Amino acid sequence: MTTLEQLGERKIIEALARLIGPGRDVITGIGDDCAVVRAGTDDWVITTDPVIEGVHFLSGEVPQRIGHKAVGRVLSDVASMGAEPLWLAINIVAPPTLELAVLEGIYEGANALLARCGGAIIGGDVAQGNNLELHVFGVGRLPAGTALLRSGAKPGDLLYVTGALGGSLLGKHLDFTPRLAEGQWLREQQLATAMIDVSDGLLSEANHLAECSRARVMVDAARVPTAPAAHHVDTHAPLAHALTDGEDFELLFTVPAEKTSVLEQAWREHFETPCTCIGTVEPGGGVHTLHAPEELTGNPGYEHFRLSDSTKNAGAENATE
Amino acid sequence: MTTLEQLGERKIIEALARLIGPGRDVITGIGDDCAVVRAGTDDWVITTDPVIEGVHFLSGEVPQRIGHKAVGRVLSDVASMGAEPLWLAINIVAPPTLELAVLEGIYEGANALLARCGGAIIGGDVAQGNNLELHVFGVGRLPAGTALLRSGAKPGDLLYVTGALGGSLLGKHLDFTPRLAEGQWLREQQLATAMIDVSDGLLSEANHLAECSRARVMVDAARVPTAPAAHHVDTHAPLAHALTDGEDFELLFTVPAEKTSVLEQAWREHFETPCTCIGTVEPGGGVHTLHAPEELTGNPGYEHFRLSDSTKNAGAENATE
Repeated sequence: MTTLEQLGERKIIEALARLIGPGRDVITGIGDDCAVVRAGTDDWVITTDPVIEGVHFLSGEVPQRIGHKAVGRVLSDVASMGAEPLWLAINIVAPPTLELAVLEGIYEGANALLARCGGAIIGGDVAQGNNLELHVFGVGRLPAGTALLRSGAKPGDLLYVTGALGGSLLGKHLDFTPRLAEGQWLREQQLATAMIDVSDGLLSEANHLAECSRARVMVDAARVPTAPAAHHVDTHAPLAHALTDGEDFELLFTVPAEKTSVLEQAWREHFETPCTCIGTVEPGGGVHTLHAPEELTGNPGYEHFRLSDSTKNAGAENATE
Repeated sequence: MTTLEQLGERKIIEALARLIGPGRDVITGIGDDCAVVRAGTDDWVITTDPVIEGVHFLSGEVPQRIGHKAVGRVLSDVASMGAEPLWLAINIVAPPTLELAVLEGIYEGANALLARCGGAIIGGDVAQGNNLELHVFGVGRLPAGTALLRSGAKPGDLLYVTGALGGSLLGKHLDFTPRLAEGQWLREQQLATAMIDVSDGLLSEANHLAECSRARVMVDAARVPTAPAAHHVDTHAPLAHALTDGEDFELLFTVPAEKTSVLEQAWREHFETPCTCIGTVEPGGGVHTLHAPEELTGNPGYEHFRLSDSTKNAGAENATE
């Protein structure tokens, strides 16, 4: 028998995805940041994210920041499809001895972010458990057929990332800004061919793009923007953090070569958020990293459930899958 | 400071609902079995339900039955609006040492029910935790403006319930049939004015109808159908179980007096599931129970978080709120 920790999150989800039949009006099921379903002249993106005490935040964290993160993770998934967020539902699991004020603080943080980003909480449930958990379900909307999937990257495209990466553990993972405006703008302008949000680490997400697009993604590490926090986490190279740390919630996307000058100029006119070209898409498969720091020995990013002695996988440098 | 167990589930949800602003295209937010949103020419119903080891099922339960229950709870909520189920997403929390076969069994049970009822799993996530939990999010559809809310009951209506009640703990809570066909038929035939599913106990649900409809609901206990299991749970009166046990997942609905003969005849032509008139709607408020068993001392049904010494509430006999 195989346990979850022997498999790791990715293979667990693959195993479960094989058990799922096709649904009505389902454009894209399991395997992207959101599922995409067709209803009338619109497509709808649907996503769920858990935020769990001891895994995604520490006990005693400021409730407003927990609420921000729980809702922000879902909004970031919606952003990565190029959609606008509409409706969210939240399941809360909490110990009976928890003070109501903690839940009220969580909602306060969630609502503050929603007031900036759009979307509203419309329902949910509460249940008892030993640890505090939030399970946020989100629905977003975009015109039919326009969702920016992971699978659209083509050889010849260039690879871009928003913001700067690494060291989010020092704070950004609790107060990041989901890149909704940027994601919707990229979709409206038809500038991007594929998009994903950076939740599990840059190389890991680049690997998802490569797998789903059946192409090779080349990441030039020397061009990856490192966040100030990446320099203060520990003694590891900031670049190693930028390449593998999770929870930056930036957008990673691909752009056809002939559109890059339009993109770069228009981006500067619209957004303060930086946007940096960090690589290319080529024929082949897997992720290839140029100028990677020596200490990057194959950890491609965070994966839930994974035993620590088996973290080497296809996202690593020189992977050839 | 107030803790969750001092408040109980209902007041926790009330407190959180006060913190939520209005969303775009939201027809009905927190406070019904599902939220209702407008999506083009259709309305969508959106609901979430947690199913947690130690709360909703015991450790070691057959995985297929856990999956059936987790999806069935959501389908029952969808049924209680009169909607057809479309898309579901599942967040799973599990210990790392859990065998994959358990999750596969859960999906098998979920899929078997979906194959009978409609709807498909389109996404989800997995995360680590100490106990096994499923958080199921569901979207259903119906023509705009036709959702059967809790708030539509009118004085003069008669109160009906499907199936037979009580003792679900002996097994029905894990293998019940969501009343989707019945719920959609009631909506299509425009026979019901209000509807709710019986998840927390008959009197508790009757109280929700009364509160939301600002009317008094009279339940004639002598007419409430008791399930065979209600006679075998313990030494309490079967009728007490039928009135207060949770998780029967039957439909409780109200019908205008002039439509009851049409309802009763057409029902028999369409369904094997029994449908029984058990009371009336009157001016006023709260739930009034006629012919209640003596031992029914005020427990109106199961409420999460509630301390056991404070379970008496407005759902009880002779409540006058």
